[in-house]
Formats: sequence, C-alpha cells, structure tokens
Amino acid sequence: MSFQIALGPRERKSPFYDSTVTDGVSHMTIYNDMFMPVSYGDIDAEYRRLMQGVAMWDVAAERQVEIQGKDAERLVRYLTPRDLKDCAIGKGKYVPLCDHEGRLLNDPVLLRLEDDRFWLSIADSNVLLWVRAIAAEGGFDVSVQEPDVSPLAIQGPKAVDVVVDLFGGWVRDLKYFWFRQTELDGIPLVVARSGWSKQGGYELYLRDGTRGGALWDKVKKAGAAYGIGPGAPNYIERVESGLLSYGADTMPDSTPYEVGLEKMIDLDRPDDFIGKQALARVAKEGPARRLVGITFDGDPVSTNEHPWSVRVDGHIAGTVRAVCHSPRRAENIGIALLETKYADIGTVIEFKGEKASYKGEVVPQPLVPPGTPIPE
Amino acid sequence: MSFQIALGPRERKSPFYDSTVTDGVSHMTIYNDMFMPVSYGDIDAEYRRLMQGVAMWDVAAERQVEIQGKDAERLVRYLTPRDLKDCAIGKGKYVPLCDHEGRLLNDPVLLRLEDDRFWLSIADSNVLLWVRAIAAEGGFDVSVQEPDVSPLAIQGPKAVDVVVDLFGGWVRDLKYFWFRQTELDGIPLVVARSGWSKQGGYELYLRDGTRGGALWDKVKKAGAAYGIGPGAPNYIERVESGLLSYGADTMPDSTPYEVGLEKMIDLDRPDDFIGKQALARVAKEGPARRLVGITFDGDPVSTNEHPWSVRVDGHIAGTVRAVCHSPRRAENIGIALLETKYADIGTVIEFKGEKASYKGEVVPQPLVPPGTPIPE
Repeated sequence: MSFQIALGPRERKSPFYDSTVTDGVSHMTIYNDMFMPVSYGDIDAEYRRLMQGVAMWDVAAERQVEIQGKDAERLVRYLTPRDLKDCAIGKGKYVPLCDHEGRLLNDPVLLRLEDDRFWLSIADSNVLLWVRAIAAEGGFDVSVQEPDVSPLAIQGPKAVDVVVDLFGGWVRDLKYFWFRQTELDGIPLVVARSGWSKQGGYELYLRDGTRGGALWDKVKKAGAAYGIGPGAPNYIERVESGLLSYGADTMPDSTPYEVGLEKMIDLDRPDDFIGKQALARVAKEGPARRLVGITFDGDPVSTNEHPWSVRVDGHIAGTVRAVCHSPRRAENIGIALLETKYADIGTVIEFKGEKASYKGEVVPQPLVPPGTPIPE
Repeated sequence: MSFQIALGPRERKSPFYDSTVTDGVSHMTIYNDMFMPVSYGDIDAEYRRLMQGVAMWDVAAERQVEIQGKDAERLVRYLTPRDLKDCAIGKGKYVPLCDHEGRLLNDPVLLRLEDDRFWLSIADSNVLLWVRAIAAEGGFDVSVQEPDVSPLAIQGPKAVDVVVDLFGGWVRDLKYFWFRQTELDGIPLVVARSGWSKQGGYELYLRDGTRGGALWDKVKKAGAAYGIGPGAPNYIERVESGLLSYGADTMPDSTPYEVGLEKMIDLDRPDDFIGKQALARVAKEGPARRLVGITFDGDPVSTNEHPWSVRVDGHIAGTVRAVCHSPRRAENIGIALLETKYADIGTVIEFKGEKASYKGEVVPQPLVPPGTPIPE
C-alpha cells in the first residue's frame, strides 16, 4: 500500500523543508499540522546511522507552546500532574499533560527559559488551543503563543562530537535534559541534551525560521567527518527502547497509569492540578489496561498499518500498537495495550496483521536494553 | 515534488479506508489525525464528476464533537459568536468558533440532534480538547465526546437522484443544511443536505464505524446509474466558489472578520460568548487583513506548495493562500489574504510561486458565480 501525500498550502512546512527535500526525503507524515520527514528511503541505513554513528532529524513539527507572564509558573504547575519542585532555569523536564478526566493528552518536555517564560515542546496534539482555553477561563495572567522555534535533532553515539565541533566543549558537560540559550554564527538557538532516542544526542531549537537552511548546512558540514546523514525519529529504535509514542501507543482515553508514566504523577502534591481527582481514582482502582512489550513469530514484519486486535485464549484482550523486526533482538517485537488481566509477563497472545497471523507472548520492557549493540 | 505518506498506526484510518484503497485513492492528507483522500489520480475527471454528475467523498476526517447533557445548549451558545436563536432539532448551522482573543479556531457545522445533544462537525483543529477544557473549567454539566460518526459526502447535480434512490423522495424536501436521523438497511446514519461544495448534495453521517464498507458499496451501487465515482473535497471548485478552507486560507491569528465571516458574529447578543470583547474591538477598528479573490497571468498553475508572498508597488502586502487554474473562468485564480489597504478590487499584485513569477489583480468573490457551467 502506498499513497502520495498531498502537497498544498494547508500543511505547514518546516524551516528545514527545502534541505530535507534536497537530501532526499521519501516519506512524510503530518505532525502538529506540519510536514515531518519519516524516512529517506533506506530504513536499514537510517537505523545504523542512529545506532553506530550520527543522524540529523528535522523535528520542527515538535512545536513549542510558550507560556510567559506573571502567572506562568502557576499555570504550568496547574497543567501537569508532575511536581515541578526542582524546575530550574536551563533544565528540561518530561511533563505528561492530562485533561480533567485524567486522559493523557500530550507528553511534552518542559523547558524553563526564564523565571516567567516556559516552553512545552509537544508531541502531536493541539496543546496551544487547550492551554489558551485553560489560561483564559481560569483568569491566569499569561500570554500563550507558538514562538518561531523549530528543533533539529542530532542523535547517535557520535552526536556529541558533532555538537562539540559546532559549539565547543561545554556541551559535553551539559547534563541530560539540560539546555542553554546560545547562537551559532549569529543563528539564535537553544542547545539541549535531549532527543527521542536512547542513543544520546542533542536538539538544536532554532529560534529564527528564516535560518533553517543555514543551520542544516552547518550541521551537515560539521557532521561530515563523522558520517552524518539524514534521518527521522526512528520507529525501530523507539520500539526496541520502549519510548512512548503519543497517539500511536495510546488510545484517546488512555491514562498515564496504563502507559507506564505513573512515576510522573504526583498525587501527594498539596496544590491542585488538572485531572487530580480522576487520576487519584485510577491510582486507587488500578489501570484497566497496560502497555507491554511483546515478541512474536513469523517472517520479519515492517510497520503495522492499523492497530491489530489481540486475543488471549480466544478472548479479546487489547491491541498491538506498533511492531517491527528488531535487528538487535533478531526477532519480531512490538508494543501492545492489553487489559490488565492479560498483561502479565509470559501471557501467550494471538493476533492477525495485514499480511499474516501471529503467535507471541508478553515480555519485559525495554525490549532491548540500553547499550545493546547491533550484531555483526 | 512528491513524497509517500508514511503508513502507520499513529494516523487513524476512516471506516471507508479499505473502500477508497480498492477504488484507487492516490493522494492522501492527514486531517484531524486521520487519513483523508485528496485525489484518485485524475484531477480533471474528479472535477467534472462534481460539476456535471455525482461524486462520493470519504470525509470521515470531518470528526464530530458531541456535547450532551443538562448544560449542552448553554455551552454551545457560549462557544460560538453566532446567535443560535433559531437552533431547531434537525437543522444544521454554520458556527465559527473563536478563542478568547477572537482568533478563528474552527468553522464547524452545528447539528442539534436532541434538546440536549449537539454535534460540532469540525474542520481540521482539535476542538474536542478545547471544548473539554472550556466545559470543565467553566463547570458546565455536560459530557464532551467524539462519537463513532463518519461522514460520507455525495456531491454534484445528480447527488439528489442517488440519495432519493437510496432513501426515498423525502430527501428532495430536505432544506439546505437540514438533516434527519434514519437508517439504510439497518445501518444507522444521519442524512444531511450539506457538503463542502456549491454543486449541491448530501452528507451521510455513518453512525457505526464497522459498516463503512457496506455503506460505501450501497452508495456506489445506487450511484452507478448516474455515473458516480470517487472524489474528495475539490480544491478547484472550492477556490472558484469561494468556500473557506480553515488552515489554508486562514492564519493562526485570523479573526472571522478578515476571512469574510462577519455575518456570523452577533455582537449584539445579550449573553456572553468566548471572544466577545476581542471581536468587538476588531469590529470597531476594522480587520487588519482581508481574504480576497485574485486572477493572475502565466501558464496554468496547479496547487501552490507554500503560501506565496504578495507585493503591491513593491510593498509586502500579504500572502496568496491557494491557487488553481479555473476551467470555468479559463484563467489562473486564487485566494489571497492581504492587508486591508491592499485589498480593494482592482489592486495590482505581484508574487513569485514555486515555478514562476506572476502579475494579477484583486477581483470580486466568488471567482465563479454559482451555476456557471464548464465550457465545452
């Protein structure tokens, strides 16, 4: 199955769009109303670059929601169930957002740029609209905007070398999830030690959309010595590593408890936050579903087109959310959202995909432990 | 420029997805997080079917936000600037939604199904999240859900014949924008006289996502006598007819006043609604921009890839939002969002596209009056 993506003015283009086209992007998706590269046509090479070298990803579609003003901190604390007691300037924090019913609606990284200025670096849902509604209805004295900020990720074991060559040795000392506001030959940006992989790396938050091509070229040039190449948030690595993909792994009514984010929910906080009562109820009753790792038989699979319905002993037990063939585990693996009673390690599962039927079982996460190399 | 759209579990599939694949969909977009067909590969045939015959469109991505409960009507009135004084059960109404700053955030059709049950049939932005935030923060006693409802549009001058054959003669008497809850051989649906074209037609709101293939086949079979074929919301016809495309024609800060929806804003309403103060300010000061029709020179164009920057006498004047070559006007036409001082009829404009530079002028809307036939 393959379709062209319609090219028109409705879908926003990234500041790196022309560069990704020049470098051969083949597959696109739309994420936060913006085109986002998914592949350059060589899945194996893209995976190897991330695992063994360094890759550059246009992740401008990871938009920022900027909250600025007198009540900014109070609003941010109200928005997320996570306690922000150590929310220092220059430190990022993973902050799930839930609605008033405790349903997960995004899982951004929060960056505090100043005392009264925050960015939520968001996954694919319209947090801007939602935060504006909360702020206005709640009478918070803040401005909520989408600034001109577009992340470019540099990921892989050699990412640090590229970023040192670009910015200097201080980036080696940047702790994981910390960031600094700086510039590169006059291009304003934020350098953060972060990224949606477990292979290490940085994200450069470009702060001037007119300089996308210039930044892309500088990174490409600095990375040439390390074999840098284009890539995209890597589907296989993220399934292996157990990184949550909001919207793929989650259902519209998923709570953070069922998708493994329970440690981010601080119900003991004295202050109120959105969804507190609903989440307390789920915490007490236990989640109805669990997100689990699975392995299964059959020929090597590629991406599933739909979620696949899972059966355990003939009973409907949930859905497989994402599958791939793991080069490091040398078998088919996946992520499934199963009713809690069917989510125990060792549970035997059956499901039908687009091309075949499979048997498998629930196994511990992460499916591939950090640091596992690709077999020769 | 062409890319494949990435196929994965993150993007939701319509209940008509398999049918559209079977019928040869070639171009997809993502709309409200769901795959939506854009073309079946023959733009000319799709346009002619809509203008002279009948076309069937998978518009399941036009999702519904259902507001149900004791405070449903009060909430709906609070959400939109339009006065709903004659909001009868069975009558649809076009209701722009604005945020607290008066920025247009969607332009749905409101359907009142029961006294206390409404659907907002939405364009491409996450109204569900937004309404939930407003309802919860404002203490409205309602449930806000996305029901299992997926519209299938039947559009074109022969649409009425197809729908009469399927449902009976009563559909001829259905007034424009009115609807009725009914079923087709046990498939529950809502039949509305509506659709995103000026060529007439109906939308069948399928109320059981498992019956998508069955409904598609029934429409296709009934339509065969009238030459029905697959299509999609038609880019050329909508530019000719002046139908607003939210997200394409609008900017993130566009108000309803600048995009021609001023008649939908009832500032004299005694009750409060979201954005009232901000909209009153815009109404008093006048909008900074205007959405206008344009014609321009050069070889026949197809869709623009980006918005194009417009100059008037060398000054930056705004952007061209959508262009096409009009078969009925036999020239290049488009929609532009221009600063008010550059938006007068007859203003000479210049702009550069992906392939060439153009000269044109501002002309009255609609670019093609209703009822204009295609020249032989």
